[in-house]
Amino acid sequence: MDKEHKSTQSETDVLIVGAGPSGLMAAYWMARYGVKARIIDKRDTKVFVGHADGLRARTLELFDSMGFQHRVLHEGSISTEANIWVPGPQGKLIRQAHIDIYKVDESPFYNTRLNQGRIERFILDSIREHSDLDVERSVVAESLEYDEKLSNDPDSYPITVKIRVLGEDIEAESEATDNEVNCGNLLSDDWADLAQREKPQKTQVETIKAKYLIGCDGAHSWTRKQLNISVEGSNTDHIWGVIDVIPLSDFPDIRRVSVVTNAAGTILVIPRERELVRFYVPVQTCEVGASDRFDRSTITPELIWARVQAILSPFTFDFKECSWWTVYQVGQRIASQSTKDNRIFLAGDAVHTHSPKMGLGMNMSMQDGFNVGWKVALAVAGTLKPEVLETYASERHPLAEMLLEFDRHWAPMFTDRKPEVVGTKASDMALIAGKFEDFADGWKVFYPPSSLVQKAEDNVEFAFARHMIPGERVLPVKIRNHADGGTAWTTGVLESDGRFRILVLAGDIRNPMQKQRIETLTQFLAGQSGSGISPLGRYLEIPGRFKSPIDVLTIHASPWKEVEFFDFPEILHPLDPVKGWAYDKIWCDDACMFDRYCDGTAYEKWGVDRVLGALVVVRPDQYIGWVGELGDVEELTRYLDGILVKKSTDEVGPSREYHIRK
Amino acid sequence: MDKEHKSTQSETDVLIVGAGPSGLMAAYWMARYGVKARIIDKRDTKVFVGHADGLRARTLELFDSMGFQHRVLHEGSISTEANIWVPGPQGKLIRQAHIDIYKVDESPFYNTRLNQGRIERFILDSIREHSDLDVERSVVAESLEYDEKLSNDPDSYPITVKIRVLGEDIEAESEATDNEVNCGNLLSDDWADLAQREKPQKTQVETIKAKYLIGCDGAHSWTRKQLNISVEGSNTDHIWGVIDVIPLSDFPDIRRVSVVTNAAGTILVIPRERELVRFYVPVQTCEVGASDRFDRSTITPELIWARVQAILSPFTFDFKECSWWTVYQVGQRIASQSTKDNRIFLAGDAVHTHSPKMGLGMNMSMQDGFNVGWKVALAVAGTLKPEVLETYASERHPLAEMLLEFDRHWAPMFTDRKPEVVGTKASDMALIAGKFEDFADGWKVFYPPSSLVQKAEDNVEFAFARHMIPGERVLPVKIRNHADGGTAWTTGVLESDGRFRILVLAGDIRNPMQKQRIETLTQFLAGQSGSGISPLGRYLEIPGRFKSPIDVLTIHASPWKEVEFFDFPEILHPLDPVKGWAYDKIWCDDACMFDRYCDGTAYEKWGVDRVLGALVVVRPDQYIGWVGELGDVEELTRYLDGILVKKSTDEVGPSREYHIRK
Repeated sequence: MDKEHKSTQSETDVLIVGAGPSGLMAAYWMARYGVKARIIDKRDTKVFVGHADGLRARTLELFDSMGFQHRVLHEGSISTEANIWVPGPQGKLIRQAHIDIYKVDESPFYNTRLNQGRIERFILDSIREHSDLDVERSVVAESLEYDEKLSNDPDSYPITVKIRVLGEDIEAESEATDNEVNCGNLLSDDWADLAQREKPQKTQVETIKAKYLIGCDGAHSWTRKQLNISVEGSNTDHIWGVIDVIPLSDFPDIRRVSVVTNAAGTILVIPRERELVRFYVPVQTCEVGASDRFDRSTITPELIWARVQAILSPFTFDFKECSWWTVYQVGQRIASQSTKDNRIFLAGDAVHTHSPKMGLGMNMSMQDGFNVGWKVALAVAGTLKPEVLETYASERHPLAEMLLEFDRHWAPMFTDRKPEVVGTKASDMALIAGKFEDFADGWKVFYPPSSLVQKAEDNVEFAFARHMIPGERVLPVKIRNHADGGTAWTTGVLESDGRFRILVLAGDIRNPMQKQRIETLTQFLAGQSGSGISPLGRYLEIPGRFKSPIDVLTIHASPWKEVEFFDFPEILHPLDPVKGWAYDKIWCDDACMFDRYCDGTAYEKWGVDRVLGALVVVRPDQYIGWVGELGDVEELTRYLDGILVKKSTDEVGPSREYHIRK
Repeated sequence: MDKEHKSTQSETDVLIVGAGPSGLMAAYWMARYGVKARIIDKRDTKVFVGHADGLRARTLELFDSMGFQHRVLHEGSISTEANIWVPGPQGKLIRQAHIDIYKVDESPFYNTRLNQGRIERFILDSIREHSDLDVERSVVAESLEYDEKLSNDPDSYPITVKIRVLGEDIEAESEATDNEVNCGNLLSDDWADLAQREKPQKTQVETIKAKYLIGCDGAHSWTRKQLNISVEGSNTDHIWGVIDVIPLSDFPDIRRVSVVTNAAGTILVIPRERELVRFYVPVQTCEVGASDRFDRSTITPELIWARVQAILSPFTFDFKECSWWTVYQVGQRIASQSTKDNRIFLAGDAVHTHSPKMGLGMNMSMQDGFNVGWKVALAVAGTLKPEVLETYASERHPLAEMLLEFDRHWAPMFTDRKPEVVGTKASDMALIAGKFEDFADGWKVFYPPSSLVQKAEDNVEFAFARHMIPGERVLPVKIRNHADGGTAWTTGVLESDGRFRILVLAGDIRNPMQKQRIETLTQFLAGQSGSGISPLGRYLEIPGRFKSPIDVLTIHASPWKEVEFFDFPEILHPLDPVKGWAYDKIWCDDACMFDRYCDGTAYEKWGVDRVLGALVVVRPDQYIGWVGELGDVEELTRYLDGILVKKSTDEVGPSREYHIRK
């Protein structure tokens, strides 16, 4: 051992390499499940300005389930339309079209921009709220050994990573150098992270043994290279500059998303938070082969500025304040696989890179991290069957492919300079955007059948819940809490706390036969029928967090004033000896006068009969896993048995005990 | 001088005594105007749990103008109805009525509960965001001298206050003792305030000379006593207990505001944030004279508990967790005056005390502080004519009287135990609540005519802006930003940044005559007509903050897609050499599909013609000061001349310079 360095050895259940958006989303789950985990990053601070900034509505829905979407909405900038500008008959730029980039009633949220640094702030704050986990910065992973022989033993540590904890003797890679032009205007809750961290005097080496490794280490992923996972695709021959400035311009749509094309090229104008506007600007077409990397040093902010001026002309363009800029060569690449034996996983840019102009990269990456995180954490906890981990690759890898497919259609809109395309620019873009809208906004994720996703036969919809599609999200609606009468979006009610959630869509319990059906269902839930084992007490607990990995949430369709909280059986709102009745578990789909969004149309939007109801299982990551009728309790049990680890028989106590609330 | 104590002397422009809600609201303005101020409090920490918790909608509207209502909504508990329970024919408690306690479309906000400690947190954070001002805790005011001879010289320091900065040698009064039963569950952003502050070794004495003093020091106000200001009214003979618990109860409306009356008495049930419910409970009727204070020590949580059990019976009631409790004797009192020479002011409980059961006390107090704060700060800045300070007493003191009048009607609803009133309980309460609704919710403040409030002749409404009433708030509506198309409530757009705001309700500028009227108006605003002096450049600046104490905000009524940002004259969206055009200054009253609340009805709600528009001045505290037609520029100037200090002639430069944005 190098005598300059102190070396230590330790064990952890999960090691996450890289603390960008995808790594932090994975870490969120470690915090929520209370799993022993570490997250390291080679940079010495988080991101503060610039970088990714586009948030799709589905991402905000997930943030709502995580408890911090209100912070994003407070700071972010929302866009609901895009404008296409092309040269008009006289050659002067004219607005060819407004294109709406929202769907009415599809989500409470819209396309929003807020820089990656703030998103990291919010996830970090949430992690801290739920755990002691903290990012270890200025830590470089140096070597990875993986013992395949151990891969089938979930309790083993097949992964060995050597890390170097950089000391004062070595200069770390800093986000604050490079292209962060103006960091002087940070929000106060970021100040602590900007301050220099205390580092060891000398660089130290540590060996970490881990059960699982999640590589969220970006386009040049160290993890991926260690595993010799190949990457398919190539650099394109297009070089782009990106610049975040407060513009001085008389272009009328400078605060609206705009695509501006003229003979000099195409730029994308993206208004952002705090008076900033981002410009994506073509700066050069490489003469060299597409696979070569170009020489960055030739590109300067002045050059980008001149390009924007040329393309926006005759409108003026200038700026005094620039907060960040960068330059990149578009690479359309996908890793050939996103896991090694379901012990090591890749997520985010480590799997897919593409043109960063549609607000997709950060969203896809975060949803990768969100998908893999809960599965790994719940497997480590012992509650999830390890084979379910296969669904990470089967669910997310096709989406990475779809992302590249989309990019292959979309990117030419910005690079194709043939004059004849200008006349149809708006309609061409609208066509592509429309085709990929469900995918891009995250309305659909197309998760295929698996142990986690029980599709209807032949993939037709379930007649009793036509718009509750296994493998897709729950369409967000606003519902009313039965106990207090307050309203809330389902995106927040379906809290990402780590549990599977049985949605009891109870229908109209004023109907005596329906009330009887609910009674029968709750006897099953309470373990008083059939096998006598409650599904809530049947599976291993989430240690230290929940006695049961399954939560039950009831949403009925009777008028709010015509039924009472205690009309619902106890198991649907169990009594905790300290916290009392679970008032947050009974909700109502009824219109209320004081909230225009709570209009009593949840059942209709979900395609569920208002009397008969339905039964739905929502996975911890807020995708639908299983749909059935209220009586389909055996099928429900089969579904859960396929995912969760059962207790040994002598562990199964009286079911009542397992309804302890957090 | 006592050799144990170090004594110092210093000067400040404004000294605020008491850092509760009213003191902090006043301090907010010191922070926003950048005024030299200090705020002291005898307690050694802020409040954390319990205390006041009711927020009326108007308070939330003001919070929106201050930038933090989203934090309140995220944490608070909203109620939109109240339930009246009385013994039914069989003697068992029955729900006699639901009473709606909201008005549709009156405000984006509703009755909300969140404890005083969190409100203090948010105001403190806002103060910190805008200044270096911080509360000095464990500081006791000891003596007050006031030199009346100096009262007419605004630059003098007529006030001398000796304070004692408590050191380690003396134990401070702490909020954390007394009745705070459970502080173990604080939100993380309060942790720093709970930590022991560093104190001087020994108690120190300091003499502060101040231009103005604001006494926000509660019902037993030290400031009031120093001034020998008498208090009218008395203690009632009713003793109440208050207890914040997580209830274990089968009372169906435990999470809904409820008034429960039976032979044993009347309790008020108030659901709160974080599973807490507050109970107001009559515990004793004094046999002694009403003016005597009773012996608190005889009241315990157990006694309160037993009373709730008795009144809720036959429903169950118990609890394991109690976060706070207290006991009080209702005092209905009002100070005979709320100012001394308009150099010393009283605000909040120092002026008025009453039964704390309608969520009014904290709201009234904060609005007192909000009213006096901006006036004192702007007078200190030299921008406001000192005589305007008279409006604090003329505006707020009648409201204190109204508050007591309301309380005299309302309090008996909880104390009158005659059996015959039970049958009409619900209708009686609805009648009183309805009569005082506008006052209680803050929809109306009834500010009388003054230099700040220019009423229409004979108090009739202005025909061209029928629902823009001088002395009242701007009815909140959702409008659309012209530049970016995003929507926002006027409560947030009308930011409480310290400036008067001219609302240019521009009407429909597609109409050529209307466009000409706007042109004429903007020539006046730019100082290119008549006197040649722009009203924006006419008055002294707010030093260090704004070149002009007047901001201009345009809300037009043309369809959003049919006019362009640059159709509006430059003075309405001035160019800052760094920040660019003022994109946040042009708004539109047009419906948009993606936001159900942005329905294009602002002009209608304000009673303004969609073509012809109107001109409105909103005061810094978000009340309407003046209303006119677009051509009424001379009247506008007269109004402003009555309030603001003009520059001397040689200071008036070219008006253009004064449109520099923050």
